[in-house]
Order: sequence, then C-alpha cells, then structure tokens
Amino acid sequence: MAAGTSELKRLDRDRYFDPDPKQRGIARGLYESVASLPLICPHGHVDPKLFADEQASFGTPVDLLILPDHYVVRMLYSQGMPMESLGVPRSDGKPVERDHRRIWQIFAENFYLFRGTPSGVWLTEELHFLFGVKEKLSGASARKIYDQIETRLGKPSFRPRALFERFNIEVLCTTDAATDPLRSHQAIRKSGWKGRVIPTFRPDGVINLLTPGWSGNIQKLGALSGMTVDSYPKFIAALENRRTFFKEMGAKATDHSALTPRTEELSSGEAQALFERGLKGRASQEDADRFTAHMLMECARMSIEDGLVMQIHPGSLRNHNPKVFDLFGPDRGCDIPMQTEYTRNLKPLLNKYGNHPDFTFIVFTLDETAYGRELAPLAGHYPALRLGPPWWFFDSINGMTRFRMETAETAGIYNTVGFNDDTRAFPSIAARHDLFRRVDANWIAGLVVRGIVDLEDAREMILDTAYRLPKKAYRL
Amino acid sequence: MAAGTSELKRLDRDRYFDPDPKQRGIARGLYESVASLPLICPHGHVDPKLFADEQASFGTPVDLLILPDHYVVRMLYSQGMPMESLGVPRSDGKPVERDHRRIWQIFAENFYLFRGTPSGVWLTEELHFLFGVKEKLSGASARKIYDQIETRLGKPSFRPRALFERFNIEVLCTTDAATDPLRSHQAIRKSGWKGRVIPTFRPDGVINLLTPGWSGNIQKLGALSGMTVDSYPKFIAALENRRTFFKEMGAKATDHSALTPRTEELSSGEAQALFERGLKGRASQEDADRFTAHMLMECARMSIEDGLVMQIHPGSLRNHNPKVFDLFGPDRGCDIPMQTEYTRNLKPLLNKYGNHPDFTFIVFTLDETAYGRELAPLAGHYPALRLGPPWWFFDSINGMTRFRMETAETAGIYNTVGFNDDTRAFPSIAARHDLFRRVDANWIAGLVVRGIVDLEDAREMILDTAYRLPKKAYRL
Amino acid sequence: MAAGTSELKRLDRDRYFDPDPKQRGIARGLYESVASLPLICPHGHVDPKLFADEQASFGTPVDLLILPDHYVVRMLYSQGMPMESLGVPRSDGKPVERDHRRIWQIFAENFYLFRGTPSGVWLTEELHFLFGVKEKLSGASARKIYDQIETRLGKPSFRPRALFERFNIEVLCTTDAATDPLRSHQAIRKSGWKGRVIPTFRPDGVINLLTPGWSGNIQKLGALSGMTVDSYPKFIAALENRRTFFKEMGAKATDHSALTPRTEELSSGEAQALFERGLKGRASQEDADRFTAHMLMECARMSIEDGLVMQIHPGSLRNHNPKVFDLFGPDRGCDIPMQTEYTRNLKPLLNKYGNHPDFTFIVFTLDETAYGRELAPLAGHYPALRLGPPWWFFDSINGMTRFRMETAETAGIYNTVGFNDDTRAFPSIAARHDLFRRVDANWIAGLVVRGIVDLEDAREMILDTAYRLPKKAYRL
Repeated sequence: MAAGTSELKRLDRDRYFDPDPKQRGIARGLYESVASLPLICPHGHVDPKLFADEQASFGTPVDLLILPDHYVVRMLYSQGMPMESLGVPRSDGKPVERDHRRIWQIFAENFYLFRGTPSGVWLTEELHFLFGVKEKLSGASARKIYDQIETRLGKPSFRPRALFERFNIEVLCTTDAATDPLRSHQAIRKSGWKGRVIPTFRPDGVINLLTPGWSGNIQKLGALSGMTVDSYPKFIAALENRRTFFKEMGAKATDHSALTPRTEELSSGEAQALFERGLKGRASQEDADRFTAHMLMECARMSIEDGLVMQIHPGSLRNHNPKVFDLFGPDRGCDIPMQTEYTRNLKPLLNKYGNHPDFTFIVFTLDETAYGRELAPLAGHYPALRLGPPWWFFDSINGMTRFRMETAETAGIYNTVGFNDDTRAFPSIAARHDLFRRVDANWIAGLVVRGIVDLEDAREMILDTAYRLPKKAYRL
Repeated sequence: MAAGTSELKRLDRDRYFDPDPKQRGIARGLYESVASLPLICPHGHVDPKLFADEQASFGTPVDLLILPDHYVVRMLYSQGMPMESLGVPRSDGKPVERDHRRIWQIFAENFYLFRGTPSGVWLTEELHFLFGVKEKLSGASARKIYDQIETRLGKPSFRPRALFERFNIEVLCTTDAATDPLRSHQAIRKSGWKGRVIPTFRPDGVINLLTPGWSGNIQKLGALSGMTVDSYPKFIAALENRRTFFKEMGAKATDHSALTPRTEELSSGEAQALFERGLKGRASQEDADRFTAHMLMECARMSIEDGLVMQIHPGSLRNHNPKVFDLFGPDRGCDIPMQTEYTRNLKPLLNKYGNHPDFTFIVFTLDETAYGRELAPLAGHYPALRLGPPWWFFDSINGMTRFRMETAETAGIYNTVGFNDDTRAFPSIAARHDLFRRVDANWIAGLVVRGIVDLEDAREMILDTAYRLPKKAYRL
Repeated sequence: MAAGTSELKRLDRDRYFDPDPKQRGIARGLYESVASLPLICPHGHVDPKLFADEQASFGTPVDLLILPDHYVVRMLYSQGMPMESLGVPRSDGKPVERDHRRIWQIFAENFYLFRGTPSGVWLTEELHFLFGVKEKLSGASARKIYDQIETRLGKPSFRPRALFERFNIEVLCTTDAATDPLRSHQAIRKSGWKGRVIPTFRPDGVINLLTPGWSGNIQKLGALSGMTVDSYPKFIAALENRRTFFKEMGAKATDHSALTPRTEELSSGEAQALFERGLKGRASQEDADRFTAHMLMECARMSIEDGLVMQIHPGSLRNHNPKVFDLFGPDRGCDIPMQTEYTRNLKPLLNKYGNHPDFTFIVFTLDETAYGRELAPLAGHYPALRLGPPWWFFDSINGMTRFRMETAETAGIYNTVGFNDDTRAFPSIAARHDLFRRVDANWIAGLVVRGIVDLEDAREMILDTAYRLPKKAYRL
C-alpha cells in the first residue's frame, strides 16, 4: 500500500483551498494578507526548558518528530507497531528500541498511513520548509532524509530560540501545573533573551482529589505558597497565592481539564468536607467530581478578581487503554473523547458569572455536536463566553471548516478566539498556524463568492481571526 | 474590526449559490422558476394586530429592526452591550435608553458582528430591497440610513397590509394561545381586507401545569369556552371547544412546545390526579412533564378528529439566564437548545396514531444530530410524520443545507414540508423565503450537476419545496 | 409532483463527482483505475439459495425489486401506500395485492418519491445497466418497463449465477444464523460451480435470551453440535463447535447485532445464572442485556482463538412500529436508529482484547456523531479495531462522504475496511459497489486538488479502499 519513492513536487501554493478558481483566488489573497503576521500562541504545551538554555537542542529526528508526538505514535500503534519498536520508554525499564535510525525507518515505511491526516500534512510541511526535504518520505528515502534533518538540527540556526524568532512568534504561552516553580520561565527572563514565553496556570493536579499523587501536590502547593494547606480555606488561599505568582511571571490565563463541564456551587461547609475527605484519602469519584464542579465556580470568581482568562478543556476520557498506560504512561494516544453536555452543565457558572463584563471564559470541546446545538447559542448570548478553536482531533482542515460552518451563523466570529496550536511539537507551530490561516481564508472566501460578505469585510475578518482576536481574548 | 463606510455593491444576483459555474447556472434557473410564486407562511409569530388596523405602522427603525429581533439583541449583548443601552424595557421599570437614534448608532457601529450570520444577510436584504439602502451599515452611515428608513416607514406603502400585498403572501399563519380570543383575527375578517391571516392553536399555557400563571390561564380557558374547568374531563372539553373556535376562525394547525418530545398515555385516573395537583398548585416538575407527555397524545387524538395539523417544537431550555429573564423577561435570546431524543420519546404517539391516514404530525428539532439518525428514518416510515424545516438557529444557509444533506437520502423531500419563516419580524419575511428558495435551488442544482436527479425532476422538486409542499402539508 | 414520462438521458459518465472540472477529472481517472476490479463482498444478506440451484430465478420484477427491498417499501408506506397494496404478505394470511403489474404501477407512479435517495440512484442504475431501460420510470412508462424487465429475467443470462459472474464478484459472504445447517452453501460446493459464496456466523438468535424462539434455537444449536445445551459451559462448547463448522464451510467472520455496544465480562457463575434464567424463561431485559454484553467478550476471545474476524452492528431499535410488525413481520422498514455510545461501552472488550495482534474487530454505527468523537479516535489507537463502512441509511453518497470527512483525519483510511454492500437485493450489488468506488474516488480527488495528497498516493488509496482493504481486513 506504500507508494514507491518519488520526487515530491513543490508544495502547492494554493494548498487547502477550494478548487473553484474564483474562491481559490479570493482565498489566496486573504491568506497572503495575513501569512506573514506574527504568530500569537495563547495555548500550548511546549516545554519552556527549550528556551531557558540558549544552547538547547531538539535531539535526533526521532526525538524531534516521533517520540513527543502522540498523534504519530498512536497511528503506528493502531496498525500493529509495538510501542517498544518506536522507542517509547517502558515504565518497568525493560529495553525498547534505542537505534533512532531503525525507528525512523519504521516510521518512513509506514508514512503512507498518514495520508489525508493532519499529521501527514504538518510533517510534510515541516520537512519541506524547515529541513528542505523535497522528496517524499518512504522506506527508500528514509536514510537520506534522516541525514538531512540530523545535519540541520546540528546547526545553531535550528536551536529553539532561533526557530522561535524565525517563526515570528510574538508570544508563546506554555501550560504549567499550579505547583510548578516556573524555573524555566525565570531562567528565560534572566537570560535577557527577548522572546516572550509566558506561563498558564493549570491547577488540575491540586483540584482533582483523585489525581494520582494529589496529596503530594497539596504539600507542594503549601510549600510554594508558604502555608500548610490543611483546610479548604487555606487551599483557596494557596491557589490565590500561586495565581498571583503566575501573574507576576506574565501569565494571562488559566486552564482546566475535566471529564465533564459540570459546574456547581457548594456551601463552604460542603466544600470543606469534600476537601477533608480528599486529605484523608477517602474521596469517592462523586466527591471528586463535585469538588471539581465547585472549584470551576471558585476559579471563575478568582478570574474575575485577578483578571486571568479562564479556559476549560473537557470531555476526554484519559488513558482509555490501561495496558498502554501501565507500560508507557500517559499521553500515548489513548485519550478518547466522550459525549459532552454544556447547556445544563455550564448553567450555574454562567448564571453567576457569565454576565460579568470583566470575565473571559473560553470553552473547548471534543464533541462537535455541541458546536451548533449548545456552544454557539451560549456564546451568542453570554458576554463572558468565547469559543475556543477546534481542539485535538479537530485541529485539522475538516475540523476547522466544520467549526466555522456550525458556529459562525449563530455566534459570529467575534465570539471565537482565533487559533490555538495546543502542541508539544514546537517545530510544527509554523505549519499549524499557516494551515489555520489558509483554512480560515478559504472559509471566508467561500462567504465572499456566495455573496454573504463582501471583500472589504472579508479582509477585516481574516485579520481578526488570524491575529487580533486571540490577542484580544487572551489579553496579550 | 469594523470596516469603514463604503458603497455596498449591488446585491449579487447569484448570492448563496455554489461558485461552480455549472451548478450556479442550474441553481439560478431553478430559483428563477419559483422566485415570484406567492409566499406560503404556515408557521410564524407575526402579531395579527399589524393587520387588524389599516393604519397600523411599524414605528421607528429601532421598533422595526432591533427591539423585536432577539437574534440582534442577543448578539449585541454577547459582545458587552447592556440591554438597557439597546432600549430593551426593564421589568422593574427603571430607565433604559429611549433615544432611538442613539440605539441605532450602537447597532450600526456593531453591525460587523453579524458578518456571516443569517441576521446579517436578512438585514442587508431588507435594507436593500425594502428601504433602498445601498450603503453598508456602519457607524459612519448610521444617521443617513436611519433617516432613509424613517422616511419610507412614514409612507402608506410601508404599512403592514401594503407590505403583505407587496410580498405576495398567499396565507400567513400566526401563533395564538388557546386562551386568545382572536380579536385581531376577527377585526381582520370584519375589515373586509382580502389578506389571508389565520390563527394557529397553541395550548402550551394551559397544558404545562408549571407555566407561570397557569391557573389564571385555566380560568380564562373556562370563561372563553363557557364552562368551569375544575376537572380533567372539563379541561379536555374546553380544549376541544377552543379548537372548534379556532377552526371557525380559519385555523389549520396546532403548535406545541415542550422541553422534550416525550409522549406517554396515562390512564384517565392518572391524568385527572395530575390535573388536580395542578389546580391545587402542587404539581411537581415530573407531574408537569408527564401531563405534557400525556396531553401530546390527547392532542394527536383531537387532531385526527378535527383535522388540525399537529406541530411540535421541542428541545429548547427557555430562559437559561435568570438575570436577564428577571430584568428583561422572556424571548431575549437566552433560550438554549438541548440534546433531544426522538426514537423512544415519540414511540407511544407514533405507535398509536402514526399509521393513521388522516393525521399530519410535523416535528421540528434544535438538535441536528437527530436529522439523519432518528427523524429521517421515522419520517421515512410513519405515514403521519413529516419533518419541519430547519428551525431557529438553523434557519440559515448552512442550516438549510445540512437539513437536506442529512434527511433527503433517507426521507426524501416528500416527507418534508417546505419552509416556515417562524418570525416575529414581519418585514424580513420576503428575505427569508427568498433565501430558502435560493438555498434549496442550489441544493437541487447540486444533485443535477452530480447526475443524481435530472433537470426535469429538479424543476418539479423546487416547485414542490417552494410552494406545493407547505400548502399540502398544512392543508392550506 | 410526478414529472411526465420522458427520455432519460444516458447516465452521466461523471455522475456523483464534484462539479469542479479539475476535481472531476482526477476523480474520473481514479475511478476508472478501479472500476473493473473484482467485487469483494465481505458482508451482506443475499440468500445463498439463489446460487445453490443453477436454475434459480429472481421471479417477477416485483419479486426482484420491490418486495425484498425494505428501503422501497418503507418510503411508499410513509406516503400512505398500504403494505397490502404493495403485496407484502400479512401474518394473519388475509389477502394482499397479488397482481404484480398493479403493484408495479403503484411503484412507478410514486417513483418520484425516491428523488435524491440512494434507492432512486441504485434502481435507476440497475434498470439502465441490467435491464437496458433508458426511459424514466413513471406511471406512463410502467407497463413497458415491466415487460422489458420480465423478458430479460426470463433469459438464462439473468439467472443469479450468471449475474454473479457478470458482476465479477470475487467473493460473496452471506449472513447465517448459528443454527443454520448451511445446506445451500453445501449445495453450492457440491455443484462444482466456481463462484465463491461463503457463510458468516451470526449467533444473535442464541445469544439474546429474549429473542422470540430462543429456547427452540438453543435446542437446535444442541442438535446441530451433537450435545444437550443445558448449561452455560455446554452453550459455549456448542458455539465453538458451530464456529468450527462454519470455518470448515469457508467462513471468515462473525457478525453481531445488539441494541447497544455494551461489553462486560461476567464471572462464569453469573453467566451460568443468567443462562439458566433464560432456560427457565425468566430472563429480564437487563439479564438479556448483560448476557449479550458478556457474550460479546466471549466471542472476542473465540475470534482470537479461531481467527474469525468479529463484526458488530449496534444501535438499531428494531420493529419500532408494533402494528406493522404484528401484521407484516420484521424487516419492513421500521427499525429506527438510536444514539449509541462507544467510548465507555467498548472499553472492557478493547481493554482485554483490543491490543491483540491476531484479533480484528470491525465496528459499525448508525450514529454518525460517533464517527469523529469516538470511533475514529478508538480505531486510531487500538490495533484490533477497524471501522466498518457507512451502514444502512448512511450507505449513500452523502453518508459515504461524511464517513471519510469525519474519520480519515483521525483514523486514516488504513483503519477502515473498504465497502460492504450489506444487501438482500443481489442485482443491486454492482450498482452499489460502483457508487462507492465513485464516491471514494471523488473524495480522494478532493484531497489531491487541495494539495493534501499527491496523485501517486491517491492512486494507491483508491486501490486500497476499492479492493485491497476489504480483502485484507476480512482475511479473504
């Protein structure tokens, strides 16, 4: 099923645009008007260590392109490649493949699996633009391409900071546990380097009473905030303390994960009782769920007080495959979305805080059925609510298109917040933003050619979605 | 983000059509074949008072275009404009903006928010065709356009009856509470005016035991039907009495709202008990839900007996935002759809009445996932069942297209009923029907150009969806 | 609403392709590269008797095209045609229409109902290519076309085996109850005819404790496997015995129906207790559901042991309309899909068996919302899991397109298995496969013209989906 080696033609300058010549021409013009604007990266998972040390490097091509990319690993695994053969480390320390050239060979021979996927597109773009690879990746071309990438990665111009500048990143937000001392961010500041890399406050590890290692996290939280967190009021105080610290370090936002977007305000007595059951290791699943639902309310209150934008990413059943989780740990591609209800779940939070003029609440989903049915109607009403861009599996050409087709008529574009790359794979950032800008330009061109908006409005719209909206929504 | 003032080009004659020249040409031909057919308006919320008095006027541009349009109000509110600044009256009587020119200015400055939305499209069409506004609405053009609209609204040719005739409306159905004495409809009849404006029987206010003011409604129902409604059998008799009156006044249909489409037949003892708990003010939510589920069955029975077509519009969680509801009342844009299940919920009703040759049961949804999964399979089997057109947030270009793409393969078009404008905004009716005819013409043209139907069939299809089907389904 | 008789133009050679000339040209090229490949039919409901007797015939045009096709019957019924008028036999033996020319006339007069539906397309193709009918079917052309079909059906070249060969079918899998002695399959083998027709093992009738006639089925199961099935261990042994027999008869796969895809492993004591309640006729619905959930796990275990590919088709609420079921039996078009949850329901089975390299588990759905949200993420991770093609109501142009648009970005095409015709209507098989090949060629051409894959990859992809993938997935 794999095709033979062949010369890859230059990447189509009109790629991802509709084939209709009129729409294509308009899309190209819109895209070109924003193609070289700086990148706003308000949400992602790049390791700030990459920028803390001027000499930091990305390692081998496998370290760069395969191991950190759970989209790649999961697809190979789904077609029968053992994790070990891909060099994914085992929790039990047993041996796995260490020869990165052999891993690369497996990947290259199976690169055809990514036909039609965002990974296929991003990787092709990265290889092409970043590493000058014009040949298609396959078993036959694997070695040569590995060499080519390896050579470039050895150059100073391929270090993280250099790429940050080449990519024209205006600001990059990382995601950091509430208990992270932000040493890399401090090091970046001290280094005098001008790149703007700022943290995002993510308190899941101290809010979810059943997180593995929760009580250790609580102790750490206390240590960092200079108090013993042995009661719910102290927990709240410690959280507020950490938020203040994150803000001092430049943070503009928080981020929350949860299985569902349930929100529910508890009396302080109830909250205290649940927290104490957590401290005693006796919290049930329902206790943890209620406490999370309550803490989402509390965090909204804090956001109104301290001005941090609040994000929520619900709906993923993490670690669906215990065999893979036990042997290889989290983030190996086995987090599976679930149906997610927003209309009733968000009601308490939106009723209490959603009308507040100083609050920005950005909601994401892995359940596309909620776009038109629940999220766009909610965002088209509540002043605080904004819709996050298509997330994870939907960070794709079709995913982005569906997002616009199903939300714009009800919520417009001004209740959305542009693009998030949401990636661990730093070198893919340029390709990801470029793809978003192309897809949005194409969608807007579709409106023009159908007489729904005129070209003047279209030019404003692409500027808004590609640059202004994320900056405004995240207060960057 | 707002563009400067600029001359709006003439509206594209091929607007809303696919850009492909072949499909566009066919779409244009199909559209033109039905563009001037009379409008059938079988479901909507226009106030019949507008037609009762020959001299009735629409008021100011704000009275006409902003205040009655919850799509407009909600979008402005979602972007931080207080309701008060838009002139929405407060329940507590506190002052709100009364200067309609200032309200219009806010609207105009924020008109860019409606880019890509149905409101943006309808308003542009209305301004263009009805008021001759060729300039784009913006902060800069606001005053001039206000003047232009105000001048036209002062002319006799812009009174409601004149527009009714200019729009070529064959019949307009209003929606009227079971307890409405239909005075405006009587006045229309007496006036000798030829326009056909007929009522629709909507008994939600007497069926839902927890409607605010339910017992007052029941007293009113009794007074109007000449009996004391102090028992379930009398309630049924009074309803039947009112249906007879509505029929005499020209009604062809009933309409029902419900949070879910649950149907369930109760014994008459149970129904009686629930009704009595209602009379005593002791009905629980579950009591009210069961009584509604039962009454949907009863109303289906009545429809078979008296020939009124039965409509149901389920799935909206009304007044999601209590702050807005308390201060500004209902219908302010904070009704939010919910996931809605039809396969099991409608089973009792369809099992008992769905095979009946004299029954027409038209079902709407705000949950598009039900189109292909539940509603089209049901409508493609039960003789009584027909699918209502895309409703509310889905009364849009994409919404209409998705409706066809997801129902036609399973239910065909002959189990659907053409278009409903479902609007309070009378002057938008022409634009709404025109948009539907264009979108359906374009969808059918897509079938032709793909070789799925031939042009001869296509011409029949557009006639059916644009004119014949609503007339037939609603027995008009 | 029916159009007059008219000369049907030759079927468009580019039918079902996008109108854009560039995409259309590429689609045509891709389609032509696979148009004449043999048909792989890995799942369907053709009666093997048709091939057991060399002289078997299809009967009248009504026997061939109307009576066995529940898509046709349901649509006519939905528009008020009584089942009796279509010749559907009544369970109570009362008379129904027997004059096939009159039935055909009704069908022809109402053929316009199928505009835009897969039935309309398939029937038009069958009439055109198989019976040389160039005229459109309508009331006026009905008689002539009936004659034309009848004449051809009388010829030896229109017998089932002849069509099997003309259709270039490489292998046809039937679906057969666990208690089926497979006499027709044996007769085919003995006859020396070369056509490859093989059974599929479907044990629903013995696994679902509440199937009408379950205990009779259990006795039959025992008789066929040479043991008295009076305990759960013997039930398991008898199933394994039958699977061995089916394998000897060429079977490559099993198939399972269930209301939901719930899977759950019971202790053997619990399984034994449920089975015994079944034997005593005392199983509750929940008992039956749990037993089915457990048996899906057991059948996965057996599949790993004996190598039969496992299929599951969940989510249809069978016989929604009891009036139709009571009078006309099952499979009359009143099976209605329901919302279906996969992420949690399949977790036990996938956790235990989904990582196994020898297991192939093919999952179908009638709930398209699960494509992108649950099924593609699951298939893009678990090595055993593959996605079955769009099923039933979604075996259509839009259905196939949505399937690709919503699964390919996450699961690729290599976690899918090509096409299943899934039909009882043998003569429609060529049209169905041809339509799939066209629609997939068009989708792939859409990727090419958007620069997502190149032409070289596209050529591999269409070969994979049209021929190689079903052969590989079903081990044919």
